[in-house]
Amino acid sequence: VNKIKVGIIGGTGYTGVELLRLLVGHPQVELTLITSRSKASKPVSDLFPSLRGFTELKFSQPDTANYSNCDVVFSATPNGIAMQHARNLLEQGVRLIDLAADFRIKDITVWEQWYGMQHACPELVATAVYGLPELNRDAIASANIIANPGCYPTATILGFLPLVRAGLVDANSLIADAKSGVTGAGRGASVANLYSEVADSFKAYAVAGHRHLPEISQVLASQTTLPVGLTFVPHLVPMLRGIHATLYSDLIDTQTPLEELLSLYQATYAEHPFVDVMPLGSHPDTRSVKSSNTCRIALHKASGSNKLVVLSVIDNLTKGAAGQAIQNMNIMFSLGEQLGLQSAAIMP
Amino acid sequence: VNKIKVGIIGGTGYTGVELLRLLVGHPQVELTLITSRSKASKPVSDLFPSLRGFTELKFSQPDTANYSNCDVVFSATPNGIAMQHARNLLEQGVRLIDLAADFRIKDITVWEQWYGMQHACPELVATAVYGLPELNRDAIASANIIANPGCYPTATILGFLPLVRAGLVDANSLIADAKSGVTGAGRGASVANLYSEVADSFKAYAVAGHRHLPEISQVLASQTTLPVGLTFVPHLVPMLRGIHATLYSDLIDTQTPLEELLSLYQATYAEHPFVDVMPLGSHPDTRSVKSSNTCRIALHKASGSNKLVVLSVIDNLTKGAAGQAIQNMNIMFSLGEQLGLQSAAIMP
Amino acid sequence: VNKIKVGIIGGTGYTGVELLRLLVGHPQVELTLITSRSKASKPVSDLFPSLRGFTELKFSQPDTANYSNCDVVFSATPNGIAMQHARNLLEQGVRLIDLAADFRIKDITVWEQWYGMQHACPELVATAVYGLPELNRDAIASANIIANPGCYPTATILGFLPLVRAGLVDANSLIADAKSGVTGAGRGASVANLYSEVADSFKAYAVAGHRHLPEISQVLASQTTLPVGLTFVPHLVPMLRGIHATLYSDLIDTQTPLEELLSLYQATYAEHPFVDVMPLGSHPDTRSVKSSNTCRIALHKASGSNKLVVLSVIDNLTKGAAGQAIQNMNIMFSLGEQLGLQSAAIMP
Amino acid sequence: VNKIKVGIIGGTGYTGVELLRLLVGHPQVELTLITSRSKASKPVSDLFPSLRGFTELKFSQPDTANYSNCDVVFSATPNGIAMQHARNLLEQGVRLIDLAADFRIKDITVWEQWYGMQHACPELVATAVYGLPELNRDAIASANIIANPGCYPTATILGFLPLVRAGLVDANSLIADAKSGVTGAGRGASVANLYSEVADSFKAYAVAGHRHLPEISQVLASQTTLPVGLTFVPHLVPMLRGIHATLYSDLIDTQTPLEELLSLYQATYAEHPFVDVMPLGSHPDTRSVKSSNTCRIALHKASGSNKLVVLSVIDNLTKGAAGQAIQNMNIMFSLGEQLGLQSAAIMP
Repeated sequence: VNKIKVGIIGGTGYTGVELLRLLVGHPQVELTLITSRSKASKPVSDLFPSLRGFTELKFSQPDTANYSNCDVVFSATPNGIAMQHARNLLEQGVRLIDLAADFRIKDITVWEQWYGMQHACPELVATAVYGLPELNRDAIASANIIANPGCYPTATILGFLPLVRAGLVDANSLIADAKSGVTGAGRGASVANLYSEVADSFKAYAVAGHRHLPEISQVLASQTTLPVGLTFVPHLVPMLRGIHATLYSDLIDTQTPLEELLSLYQATYAEHPFVDVMPLGSHPDTRSVKSSNTCRIALHKASGSNKLVVLSVIDNLTKGAAGQAIQNMNIMFSLGEQLGLQSAAIMP
Repeated sequence: VNKIKVGIIGGTGYTGVELLRLLVGHPQVELTLITSRSKASKPVSDLFPSLRGFTELKFSQPDTANYSNCDVVFSATPNGIAMQHARNLLEQGVRLIDLAADFRIKDITVWEQWYGMQHACPELVATAVYGLPELNRDAIASANIIANPGCYPTATILGFLPLVRAGLVDANSLIADAKSGVTGAGRGASVANLYSEVADSFKAYAVAGHRHLPEISQVLASQTTLPVGLTFVPHLVPMLRGIHATLYSDLIDTQTPLEELLSLYQATYAEHPFVDVMPLGSHPDTRSVKSSNTCRIALHKASGSNKLVVLSVIDNLTKGAAGQAIQNMNIMFSLGEQLGLQSAAIMP
Repeated sequence: VNKIKVGIIGGTGYTGVELLRLLVGHPQVELTLITSRSKASKPVSDLFPSLRGFTELKFSQPDTANYSNCDVVFSATPNGIAMQHARNLLEQGVRLIDLAADFRIKDITVWEQWYGMQHACPELVATAVYGLPELNRDAIASANIIANPGCYPTATILGFLPLVRAGLVDANSLIADAKSGVTGAGRGASVANLYSEVADSFKAYAVAGHRHLPEISQVLASQTTLPVGLTFVPHLVPMLRGIHATLYSDLIDTQTPLEELLSLYQATYAEHPFVDVMPLGSHPDTRSVKSSNTCRIALHKASGSNKLVVLSVIDNLTKGAAGQAIQNMNIMFSLGEQLGLQSAAIMP
Repeated sequence: VNKIKVGIIGGTGYTGVELLRLLVGHPQVELTLITSRSKASKPVSDLFPSLRGFTELKFSQPDTANYSNCDVVFSATPNGIAMQHARNLLEQGVRLIDLAADFRIKDITVWEQWYGMQHACPELVATAVYGLPELNRDAIASANIIANPGCYPTATILGFLPLVRAGLVDANSLIADAKSGVTGAGRGASVANLYSEVADSFKAYAVAGHRHLPEISQVLASQTTLPVGLTFVPHLVPMLRGIHATLYSDLIDTQTPLEELLSLYQATYAEHPFVDVMPLGSHPDTRSVKSSNTCRIALHKASGSNKLVVLSVIDNLTKGAAGQAIQNMNIMFSLGEQLGLQSAAIMP
């Protein structure tokens, strides 16, 4: 069988190196091309010594790179770059998986408001598929553009999905108190993300509004006819990887037993190998998914109230970014969905 | 002026060493006695080299220790110890500040349920004062037994207090999503709190019920005639010190401007030097109060909903334990409330 | 081809779970048996949720466990346990890889001094092979008992080996200033290894003498006829995994160019896929080998002196324990030496 | 008594905020001026919320700032700035304490080589006093320019000083294996110091040569007539504060008992309140000096060799920078050397 020829646009960030880590071990992938303006012509393994011995690839200049030889291109750049490549790639028959936000929001006006720029190819947004396989597996298989979900949205949507779909909770009063490791903030030089600013401390940020809010709301709204209202508060945890979403909702019928909800979750995700619905009483920690593509979910009723509490954890770089992108690629190219993603989480 | 003669029961844990750190620098305190069964007759500074040069005190056997010379005794032991000393201390004219939970819950039945033991002196619970100076300063001044608040309750109550008192939110639908540093779990040998179990990870725990829930509920209920319902979910953060409480509530009048709420908070805490109400738009990080006795609070309205979000941070060992205990002592002995507690937070 | 039937004695520690992580992904291994006194009859994945979906195995009682069905048994227990199983296993035709220290020191008197107990089977120590494949690959292939090297010794020996063998440095004046992540201290409940004792701090320990000293000295002495003297100072780093050995030695000929030494290292390790000799000027960080079986080495001459400085890093749980044990198993069973160990390091 | 009027040039880094933390609590200091180009006209407490309530000061433009009103100015800028202010300050009768390196190296040629720039006032370097009070207390008292020592040099020199002075070790074969917390790398935006680059990892850096090497060598050489040769290897530890220097030397008389060396150290530092010579067998951890101005030292003989091992720990921001600067100020203005520096270390 021919291997899939894979290119990467912008491979110097954390999602880039996570893509590389997973792709060099993927049995059906041939890494063909990786671009970086700042590192052009340097070996990838000079920047990331963890890859010494795994790839001889060098970074290429993005402007002169020839993508036509690729079957699929991952874009692991900041927002606003992939949309500039999309038309060109599609014309050459190359499929695109964008790990940034360019194709996530269907309403262009909303997108332009939150992302503060004009969209370069609104007509392609309509054709892009939101790459959450647990929601859109069939559409992903035939898509030419995948909008790979954000990390917070992946954890939050998988946690709320069965409830909102089944209409069991007040979808207009959802709360997602979400916590992220620091790699979620990217690899750009900034004072705010220095070790000495982040370590041994904890904070909320962007309480007044975060770009992942419209993304989550759009997807949840697509699963119900009722109005969706979400309070989303992200926090920064002094750890490298991991998202922990603590999800609060009001049960319509406060007497609904947890066992019934557990069955619903198990049924929803029965055919989805990367979602692990845990036994009642569980408290998943983020390290239980470190470096793996799994989302673990646990259900609780809070003492002293009738609120339902759902705990949902992922590795932000894997299921929240690069792993999910490869899961999408596997589906797009009719490979086993788990191919190259089967390692157990590193522990601890 | 005579200095206050201070004893400490059980000084080998993190609240113990924090008490010691603050008391050796307190200008009106004479450290007289510190007990520890396991370390009896050893110099305190052998166990805590950070105190070398600050005290010559040795640990005493708790059974033979003579407290009668003390003006006040801090109990920094596990739950269930202070209540065994209380009668004896009071009979000798020694005032007691309990940093554990023995005197926090007025309803003995509730206490015995949550703490799993029989109370040794229910009659004294009635006379004990809950040692949150921002709530009970006058009663503290004349109290003989202080129930020093828990760390989560301190951050949560100070964050909700103005709203619940003023009846501006639905007190029956409060949510406290709280995060704590690891020192909150104490200094006992346990696998669960090993560095290798906790570092680089994040988790919720005790979602089904935590002992601080009835404590918070009791205090908030005392401030309103309306029913109080609280969902309280604690989490463990890989950091040493700090509590970050993210507090959600539903405004009765969703149009209430944040500026009005800010004024309410400022008025509530105007005479309380250890509560810092921050400007709108602030996101206090826990390091901003590291090693200090300050609680910082910020108010937000969440995008996409009408929920009010209050952020409240403290150092769990200082304002959440030892610092607040000393603040109480200062009030009890008519000293300046801030005496010995005026250092700026260590940063970073 | 029949898979290798593998048993594990004592799989509840960090080397145990690392063995499990790697073995569940090994294509030629069938996990047959795992013992634990404290967790007997519980599913492995209850203790380690990271393994949910990867194994249905339950812990067995060590006393009644039947090892005769195994081809090889890994012992991941504290020191002094494997030696009690060794005779029995060998009689049943089961080969033993001991990840503890029972078979590392050839001189029984020395062993008994450092480990404070009587050895249970001195006669088997003589037949055991020190499982450092870069030194003993052929002997490992036919061994029945493997003494899997300690973590510090692996990093230190690989770093000094070419120099000592070639007689280029004064072997009597070696210094190994070694730093370890906290998983090296094991998973036993102890105050000293609590998160709150270890985080955000750094210290040396056991400067007067550490058990890995005689192990390193024995191996280095076997490679030279000159006397070997080693100063070994271990330190504890607030990180999960990793050993960083900073190795100092005095060149016999201070004019020896670094390029010549680099060639020597490259030649020594040319046939050893898990040793990466880096280009001159490199500073390997421990994360570059996190979760991988690689040892990275870099050579430097210090400014202001003629000392040679060798930097050597490994993951203490992988190349320093479980990974190396599997590397040994691969060699013992004539599999590819890298089988099941080919993943790139997780980064970051 | 009139308070000392203090100015700070460049107060936005970690040594700046540590200066501020200590100075706002100093009973004899009046903070008069603090400059920052990037933050000019903003309140200091906006940048550092930990200082809310402690100072109303705003940052001033460095170019227009009027220092003439100050008694002393601390320069907490990058290298090369203080030397541009020095003449002007001295002409106005303002004394200068430079926390950077401009006045540390007496040999201008050496300085210019290591720091890569031309010195602006070589004639003033000759008059500057190296601000290590344990070495130069008397000269400091009357100095107009203090070259405040680097963090590595402080820990290293205090650890080697008694040995080199007394000629007890081979000063030509010293090794300092030094480890620093990340605040030592400063507060500039850089990829290398991001949390995600530094956390959960460990590395050496600048093995081929670090600017603190000539500084340490110069000072040690001033204490002996014998040649001094030092191998200095710095490492980065994933922690906020702290230096741990592990110092190796060869005793001239290998039979010298440790007790004798201990007495020598005790005698050397008997009149120096900030150096704590610990009992034999001690392993000081960096947290034992966190936020304090103390240097703790312990002596060991290594097992298996005759090397002497000295462990020396400081807080790089306090005794390694701001605390020592204030200690110098106290001496310069005839205040108690410990004034404002008496707090016990925060633990943990």
